[in-house]
Formats: sequence, structure tokens, C-alpha cells
Amino acid sequence: MNIEEEVISRIVPKEKENKQIFEAVEKVKAKILKVADSLRLEVEPILVGSVAKGTHLTDPDIDIFVMFPPTTKRADLETYGLKIGEEVLERFEKKYAEHPYLCGKFEDMDLEIVPCFKIDKPSDKMSAVDRTPFHTNFIMKHLKEEQKNEVRLLKQFLKGINIYGAESEIEGFSGYLCELLVLRYGDFTSVIENAKNWKKGVLIAFDDRKHPEFEDCLIVVDPVDPGRNVASALSQDNFATFIYACKEYSAKPRIEFFFPNEIPSETIDDLKNEMEKRETTLLGISFEKPITLPDILHSQLRKSVKVITNLCERYGFNLTNYDYFVNSEVMMLFEFEVFSLPQAKLHKGPPVWHANAPDFLSKWRISQKLIKGPYIKNGNWYVDIKRDFLNAKELIESNLDALNLGSHINESLEKGYKILVGREILKDSYSLWLTIFYKNKFRWEY
Amino acid sequence: MNIEEEVISRIVPKEKENKQIFEAVEKVKAKILKVADSLRLEVEPILVGSVAKGTHLTDPDIDIFVMFPPTTKRADLETYGLKIGEEVLERFEKKYAEHPYLCGKFEDMDLEIVPCFKIDKPSDKMSAVDRTPFHTNFIMKHLKEEQKNEVRLLKQFLKGINIYGAESEIEGFSGYLCELLVLRYGDFTSVIENAKNWKKGVLIAFDDRKHPEFEDCLIVVDPVDPGRNVASALSQDNFATFIYACKEYSAKPRIEFFFPNEIPSETIDDLKNEMEKRETTLLGISFEKPITLPDILHSQLRKSVKVITNLCERYGFNLTNYDYFVNSEVMMLFEFEVFSLPQAKLHKGPPVWHANAPDFLSKWRISQKLIKGPYIKNGNWYVDIKRDFLNAKELIESNLDALNLGSHINESLEKGYKILVGREILKDSYSLWLTIFYKNKFRWEY
Repeated sequence: MNIEEEVISRIVPKEKENKQIFEAVEKVKAKILKVADSLRLEVEPILVGSVAKGTHLTDPDIDIFVMFPPTTKRADLETYGLKIGEEVLERFEKKYAEHPYLCGKFEDMDLEIVPCFKIDKPSDKMSAVDRTPFHTNFIMKHLKEEQKNEVRLLKQFLKGINIYGAESEIEGFSGYLCELLVLRYGDFTSVIENAKNWKKGVLIAFDDRKHPEFEDCLIVVDPVDPGRNVASALSQDNFATFIYACKEYSAKPRIEFFFPNEIPSETIDDLKNEMEKRETTLLGISFEKPITLPDILHSQLRKSVKVITNLCERYGFNLTNYDYFVNSEVMMLFEFEVFSLPQAKLHKGPPVWHANAPDFLSKWRISQKLIKGPYIKNGNWYVDIKRDFLNAKELIESNLDALNLGSHINESLEKGYKILVGREILKDSYSLWLTIFYKNKFRWEY
Repeated sequence: MNIEEEVISRIVPKEKENKQIFEAVEKVKAKILKVADSLRLEVEPILVGSVAKGTHLTDPDIDIFVMFPPTTKRADLETYGLKIGEEVLERFEKKYAEHPYLCGKFEDMDLEIVPCFKIDKPSDKMSAVDRTPFHTNFIMKHLKEEQKNEVRLLKQFLKGINIYGAESEIEGFSGYLCELLVLRYGDFTSVIENAKNWKKGVLIAFDDRKHPEFEDCLIVVDPVDPGRNVASALSQDNFATFIYACKEYSAKPRIEFFFPNEIPSETIDDLKNEMEKRETTLLGISFEKPITLPDILHSQLRKSVKVITNLCERYGFNLTNYDYFVNSEVMMLFEFEVFSLPQAKLHKGPPVWHANAPDFLSKWRISQKLIKGPYIKNGNWYVDIKRDFLNAKELIESNLDALNLGSHINESLEKGYKILVGREILKDSYSLWLTIFYKNKFRWEY
């Protein structure tokens, strides 16, 4: 059995599982219609997503959409959509895409019940999910039976290298994108062989219809809506990682690309050695994980580390790396090339012949912060003044409250946070994060 | 007696001194003619420069030009020019402008004997100094008697603030430029009042003739040669310093602008405090003063400190200040904001999809310098590698021999040099230089 056969044997649902799934789908549909009837609603429950398309892996999320007539009021769609879900699901929690929907359990299977508007064509889209049934139909119509396992292989490959999913936490490939790639290239191997030669801006379209100019690295024009790039959520780094993974897998196929090893945490001693070898200064900001949707959390965290990094670099504290990690707490990590700077700092003023020169002189001559000057350099006034923040920790501490990091991050920081520097971060609870941060290996290399 | 009257009383040569000067000039001219006669040369000795123009200060350099027919060969001009000087002067040394000339003593007065070609108009210029007699004539013709002391005041003002002289050591105002400024504005006070409002690129011309576009801060079109900017040697900083000095003097005239106080050296303890207060790292390179003309020495030193500064900044060692000082030894001083950097250094490679990517990977994967990676960041390959030089001293030591600092500096460094860092520089012999370097005050403020 070769590697891909082995993967297939592990990820394709057995007949028994599929039987359970489709029986459950029928039961759920019936229940939905019954509840709707009691509410005097005319709705149509349909199976969408990977299960409908036959490209699901074992233990899938089952996606059932409840299609409301387009005349339904938005508020009603939301209210009744939730109501139906609550009646049908055994345990559930509320989630939000553009509007709320329920995600829960039915006979121990993961199920989502999502209300949408029943529209005639994708351009009539009234809510964010209305396009999904068209995607499902397109794939069901065009994907051949023998291509379904090829899609599954591609999905598992992307899972294995940690870039499967279009959500903000991942910024990777959606299931629909996997299906379109297999449709375009034929099978898993051809996707790999083609993708290893991709360059930034590669364009894939399924017909000649006009589409906007997309700026993304990978452009896959949605065959059901040419105004949309199916790969728009893909980050540049994940695009690059995929190309490199395809090259590596093509040269030397290995099961680790599909099922990577667990990441072995380094010991505190090893991490301390690493820290000393690098000689950089590591600073961590830890705080309680904000309660919000993963998409919002991750996009705010991604923004936050960038905002803090920009602040530091603006003050001359240059970084070599930064990242964040999340479990019940959040840890933002910043690695500094320049962590401390001397007291004296050059401050540039206007040219000597400029109208503002007298103001500059009179302001700084009496300043408590003045160390030297005013003096002339390259025709400009300069002063040497006392630096406000002698190191990056002081700078961050003094500015963190005032930075716009996103409402959830700001709120969580208001409740409290810790700034740890250097060895203070060397705790067992952070060792896995520090391993990943310092090693920065590809997922299949651990 | 107001300030300017007092200055006049100190700088205008007394009648007795002038009598001595002009008697000496006549004697020298006669001697030159006699020597020329014995050499069968037809030359014409003429008095030029400030003495000829009546704008000289006490104890002036007396400039006597020996005009050769334009048919004279260049080599003969040089040979016989020197020969005449040797016969006439009591003690002398050789100097070079474009060609060699002699500078020496005659009856205890400073005298220069410079050979030149006698040309009809400045555009016929055959050697660098041929224009001088035309300058002398122009000023003698246009400068009024009562303006001569105004020129003297301006010269002394510029001497006092240390920007008198067009030579490379100073990069300031020539005597001829002072005369033209008084011609333009009328008197010393008017020069001050106008110059305090100068802006970069100010243009002064004495007629409407066409001239090239000059890029300098101050443009004074030479009335005897419109292709030349008389202020071309003036540095931007000295231009700015003059504007500011004029403002300050206009607001509050003080004798210190003409006769500044001696610069009081700080004590080693004070300098140590200054060093500690600033927290920057000072590095000095000291070596024997190269034997060459001041113009060459200073232009090479000015270049050298810039080349070394650029090297350091290219490696991330950012400076707050640099300068050089000269007596029997040379000291270059560099003040660092960032003197040390950590071992780990980011090194950027090509984009992951670039044709050179495989070479980058195979090169760095086996490198002894590799610390982390290769990894992907913003679509590019990166590695963290060991920094070649952990601090600016190591960097300078390893590269000084290979830098092109100018032949005289390179030769002197080959004989040996010392690099001193921080407190190692705190020696009594450097305390005046360190005072100037750290304080950076205007000359009239000490």
C-alpha cells in the first residue's frame, strides 16, 4: 500500500458511517419541516457542504441549510432560523458568520443548521451564505466520482501542513477551493505537480467570463460568481508554504505531510540555551483569552501584534520576530534585535532658514529633556534629548492602554496583563509555544 | 566706543605697519625683476589679494603674483616660478594649488610668490590662479574707500565664528566673497541684516549675464567669470551657521562674535559624567597625522569618517554623531546609539516561487552560520544566521584596511592605529576634542 492509499484508508468514511450520516440527515430534514410547520413557515431544508458533495472526511461537520423565501424579513430569518435549530439539535451553541446560526450535536454527529435565503442566482445573494447551495450544486454536477477521494487527499494534505480552512485563524484553503483545484488539474498528484510551480498571482478560471482584477497571490475565480476569488482568504505565507510543501512532497512523499508528528516541546534548559545562543531579547505579553468568535479573536490578535511591533520599530526597537499563541490565555511574543537604547536621542528640527526655526529653538532651549544643542547638522536644527523610553518594555507598558488593538483585546488587557522579559518567559506552560517560536519549522518537519 | 569700533581698532593695520608692508612689496617686486632678468625671463610681478585691495587685517599674507607670458610652457612656469621665489624669500615652504608655489618670510612678513599666466580675459584662464588678478582689479575698481573697513569687520566676524576661508579645512567664506557681499549690501551691518533672512539657494549677481544653474546654498555669481559661483566652497552647515550667527548678532551684538573666548576643556570627570549621562558608546580611531597638504588631509578625513559611518550603519550600528580632530595625531570620533547587536540576524532570501529559491535553500541548510530556518515570511525565504560582527569595534577592525579612505589616510593607518572605546578615550590629551564633540556649541557661546 503506498502512502496515498494508506491515507485514503484512514480518511474516507466507512460505509457504516456514511449510512449513519445520511439517515441522520433525513431525520433532521424531517424534524426541520415539522418544526417549521408548527411555526407556519414555508422553508426547504437542504444538505450542503462536503457531505452533500461526497468529499467529506471521517467524522465530518454536516451542514444543513434551511432555505427561507426571499420575501422573509432578515430579522425573521434569524429568529426562526435559530428557533428551528434549537428544536432539532440535542446540544448546541450559537455561532455567527454574517448572521447567527446553530452548531451542535445530533446523534453524536456534528451538525450545523444555517438559515439562508432561497435565491435564483448567486448575484441575487442577500446574505453571506446564500451562495453555498450554488457551490454545492456546481461541485455535485462537475466532480466525477473517482475525483472525490482526490479531493479528500488534498484536504488531508492541507490539514497535515496546517493550512486547511479559510477562517482567520488559519488563512488557508477552503474545502470548496480544494474541490475546484481537483476539478482544474484532475487529481491530487496533478494538483501537487502543478502547484509546486505556481508563482504569485497565478490565475485559475473555469470559463471566459469577465472578473475583477484580484490582487491576491492565488486567484481562483468562483465559477458560480466571477466577482469573487475563492482563494481570497489565503495568506501569502500559506500560499508560499503550499508551493514549498508540494515541491518537498513531490521530491520525497512522506506520510508526515498528511499526519504530522506531534511537536515535541523543548526543555526549559534547551530553550534557555536557545535564548542565550540567539542573544536577542524576548518579551511576552500574556493575558486572559477574550471571549469572542475565533475569527474575530484571531484577526484582532494578528492586528495587535503588528500594531505593537510597529510602535516598537518607530521608537528604534527593532524586532527579529513576533507571533501570538492562544489557549485559555493569550501570549504575544516579540523578539528584539534592539531592546534598549541610550538616554541621548537625536531630534531633528526645521532647516535653519525655515520660518519655524525660532519656535523650535525657544521650545527646546528651556526643555527639561535637553541634553545637547540646539546645533546645526546638514542645514537643519537638531537637539539631543532624553529618550522617553529606554527599552521596549517601558515603551509597551506606557502605551499599551492607548493602542487600538481591537475591542476584545483592549477589553481583556484592561482586566490585566503581564509583561515578561527574557528568562521570565521560560516557564513549562509556555515551552511548546517557545519551541514553535524559536524553531519555526514546517509542520511536517517535526 | 561701540563693539564694531572696538573691533576696527584691533584689526585695521596701523599706518606704520602698512608702510612696512608696501615698502616690502616694492622691494620684493624689484628683487623678482632682477632675478627674472638674470634668468632672461620677461615677467611682471604684481600685488594681488587683500593687501592690494586694502581689505587686509593686521599681519596679513602678502600675495605677489609673477605673471608669465601666455606662451610660456607650463613646466617652465612651474620651474621658474619656484626659482624666483627661492631667490627672493628668506625662509619658504612649497605649497600647491593647481601648481606649486612658495610661501615664506620676507622681513618677518608672510609672503606668497605665485606664478601665473598673464591672460587678457578670465575665460582664457590657463591655470587655477590666473583669475585672481581680475578679482583684485574688480574690487579695486568698485569697492569704495569707506567700505574697506566694512569688509574687514565681516572677515573678522567670520573668523570669530570659525567659518572664514574657502579651504577644505574650513569650507567657509573667502576674502573675495566678503568683498562682494559688502559691495552688494553696502556695509557690514547690511550684510548681517540681509543674511539673517537668507534661505537655501539665495542668488546674488552683479549683472544680467547668463550663468549656469548652481546647486549650492549660496550663489554669488563671479562678476569677472559668470561660470563660477564664488561661494561654491561654502558647506551647508557653515551657510546655516552664518545665517544663525547674523540673527544672534543682530539681536544682541557681542564682541565674542569677533573675538571668541578660548574653549575651556572639561575635566575628565565631567566628560565621564557626560558619557554616562548620554549612555551612548563612543569609539575613537587615533593615528599619526599624514604628511600632506591641509586641503587634501581634510577632504580625505571628511570622506573617511563618512565611509566608516556608512559601513557601521549598513551593519545596523547606528550613530548619533561623528567627527574628526587633528594636531600631531588624528582622532576620528564615532558615537553609537547601537554599538552591539545580538548573535542572531535575519537574512532575507528570494520569494518562495523564485527560480533562485533552491540555491538559497541548499546554500544555507549546510551553512555553519545557520541558526534557524530556512523559513517563510511574507512570501520570502529567510534564515536566521550568526552575525559576522557583534559590535561596531569588531566591524571596524575587520574592515578598516579594506576601506577606501583616501591614499594618505590609508597609508597612515597601515603604519598603525588605536581603536579606543568608551572610557579608554577619556585621556587629558583628548579632553578639548571631547568637550567640543559632546558640547557642540557655537564658537561664540563658549
